[in-house]
Amino acid sequence: MKKTFPGSAILTEVGPRDGFQFEKKIVPTSLKQEIILRLVDAGFRNIQVTAFVHPHKVPQMADAEALTAILPRISGVAFSALTLNLTGVKRARAAGITHVEASISAGNRHSLNNAGMNANAALNMGAQMVSLAKQYGMAVRAGIQCVFGSGYEEPVPVETIIRTAQSLLDAGADMLCLADTTGMATPVSICRMLDAVMPAAGNIPIVLHLHDTRGLGLVNVMTALSCGITHFDTSMAGMGGCPFIPDAAGNIATEDTLHLLNSLGIDTGLNTAQIAACARDMAAFFGRTFPGKIYRLTADSHHEHSTDGSSKMLPTDMA
Amino acid sequence: MKKTFPGSAILTEVGPRDGFQFEKKIVPTSLKQEIILRLVDAGFRNIQVTAFVHPHKVPQMADAEALTAILPRISGVAFSALTLNLTGVKRARAAGITHVEASISAGNRHSLNNAGMNANAALNMGAQMVSLAKQYGMAVRAGIQCVFGSGYEEPVPVETIIRTAQSLLDAGADMLCLADTTGMATPVSICRMLDAVMPAAGNIPIVLHLHDTRGLGLVNVMTALSCGITHFDTSMAGMGGCPFIPDAAGNIATEDTLHLLNSLGIDTGLNTAQIAACARDMAAFFGRTFPGKIYRLTADSHHEHSTDGSSKMLPTDMA
Repeated sequence: MKKTFPGSAILTEVGPRDGFQFEKKIVPTSLKQEIILRLVDAGFRNIQVTAFVHPHKVPQMADAEALTAILPRISGVAFSALTLNLTGVKRARAAGITHVEASISAGNRHSLNNAGMNANAALNMGAQMVSLAKQYGMAVRAGIQCVFGSGYEEPVPVETIIRTAQSLLDAGADMLCLADTTGMATPVSICRMLDAVMPAAGNIPIVLHLHDTRGLGLVNVMTALSCGITHFDTSMAGMGGCPFIPDAAGNIATEDTLHLLNSLGIDTGLNTAQIAACARDMAAFFGRTFPGKIYRLTADSHHEHSTDGSSKMLPTDMA
Repeated sequence: MKKTFPGSAILTEVGPRDGFQFEKKIVPTSLKQEIILRLVDAGFRNIQVTAFVHPHKVPQMADAEALTAILPRISGVAFSALTLNLTGVKRARAAGITHVEASISAGNRHSLNNAGMNANAALNMGAQMVSLAKQYGMAVRAGIQCVFGSGYEEPVPVETIIRTAQSLLDAGADMLCLADTTGMATPVSICRMLDAVMPAAGNIPIVLHLHDTRGLGLVNVMTALSCGITHFDTSMAGMGGCPFIPDAAGNIATEDTLHLLNSLGIDTGLNTAQIAACARDMAAFFGRTFPGKIYRLTADSHHEHSTDGSSKMLPTDMA
């Protein structure tokens, strides 16, 4: 490899929020707690555990308060929650959440159709959310959705993202999350966007939230690493995605991202086997296969490493 | 992007062989013919259409002769077939095949367990197959399996691959195919292997045959492109893989690879929509979802590009 990669990276596990949110089968709050604590045990220091959103619209998140109440405070571990409006921020505070993501969409049509406000109104709302959360003394990550395209026929120019980011940072955001909500990023657009936004963000850390909708998730991770990004959102088993695209791929899978990072010698402090076990348990709970690759293999790793010659993993005896 | 990528690349579609081979539901020969001709229409000039292997071991390939007989000769289009021994080469010649792949495994244990011969015997067999095919006047691609690991606890050193490649080239191979049969390649091992093998291959073109078993398929494509490789095997819908790993990912998906190449401005002469339609039709035939991403989206592309505001692709109205 001729390129230089960072020595370490940070992953934020978003499976309990982004992964679970559109699954129809409701995960019992106690199981959410168990998985979250297992993820902590696997090395995570940043987990997005829930969203304070409308319980009728996202029934899976209806237990946001109840879940938050039974999560222990663990030194050095941040349990964060997504919020989309001021009500969400207030609920999060009342529940005892210390880390929130205030998230808005940069796509005008996308924001209008999905949040009922145009992009300017959304930006205003975002700044208010950040400001309120800071008043509450929370750590605030400002999330911008649709940074690489909104899925509608509308441009989302780099200038819009810079202006949006700047407003949210001016409001006091401690961290910036650029989300490829629709999985439209490519290596070229990743570089173009980062080259523009990173200088504007200055010392504020940037997190990339990538979806694998079009198969370029890990390609984009590697590209972003080479641009100097070291913080990514990932979801165990690659859960997440869009309920309106059958079997659409979701967030980049935690275990697969880890496999890439490990192969590049980038340290994360995370235990792949433990995370893969969580992924498998959740896949079993939901009764289906998620897009992640590694979690399906590790259960069979004793086959891979068998020395008795009995492995049947790789038949090519077809002659 | 700071890196330099080639201006064009060549894809060989291997779906009809590697994609179909372990599927239980037999594809009628006439449907194979139809799909292959549609792939030609989509721009492919290289398609691996079948394998001359034992029909009891791979029933899906039992119609190798029948299929070859009904494929038209098309100027500039190479329909190739996989062979694993001298019988296969003879059958391919008798059937009228002009392009063969003579494939052997570089993993000693893998070769012993799956082909009943150690790696040295396999290499000897490979050289004989290449030599015989050249006597027949065929174009011969020498395929080396397990170049990046065999899935068994055994090293597959770079030196072994160089020695194997050299022997097959000495026997007359026109092209070399390095196969990541087990999906174990990483950007680091791709670079290390290519840096060693490319000088040894001299003017002989090298094709990479990658599997996405561990999620790094397209990461490895991008890495190999930056190392100067411009020829890849791909399979529509990402069909293929291993029958002993449930839902294991298969070959890198043609449409997803195309999406990456297109995004990098690399020309292939291929029509993504037509290939995705083939992928969808085969997924429908087999009655299941394959790992490829793009083929699942393109049917909905009118939603993505709708201008009536009715798209429901990207709901974030959760507040």
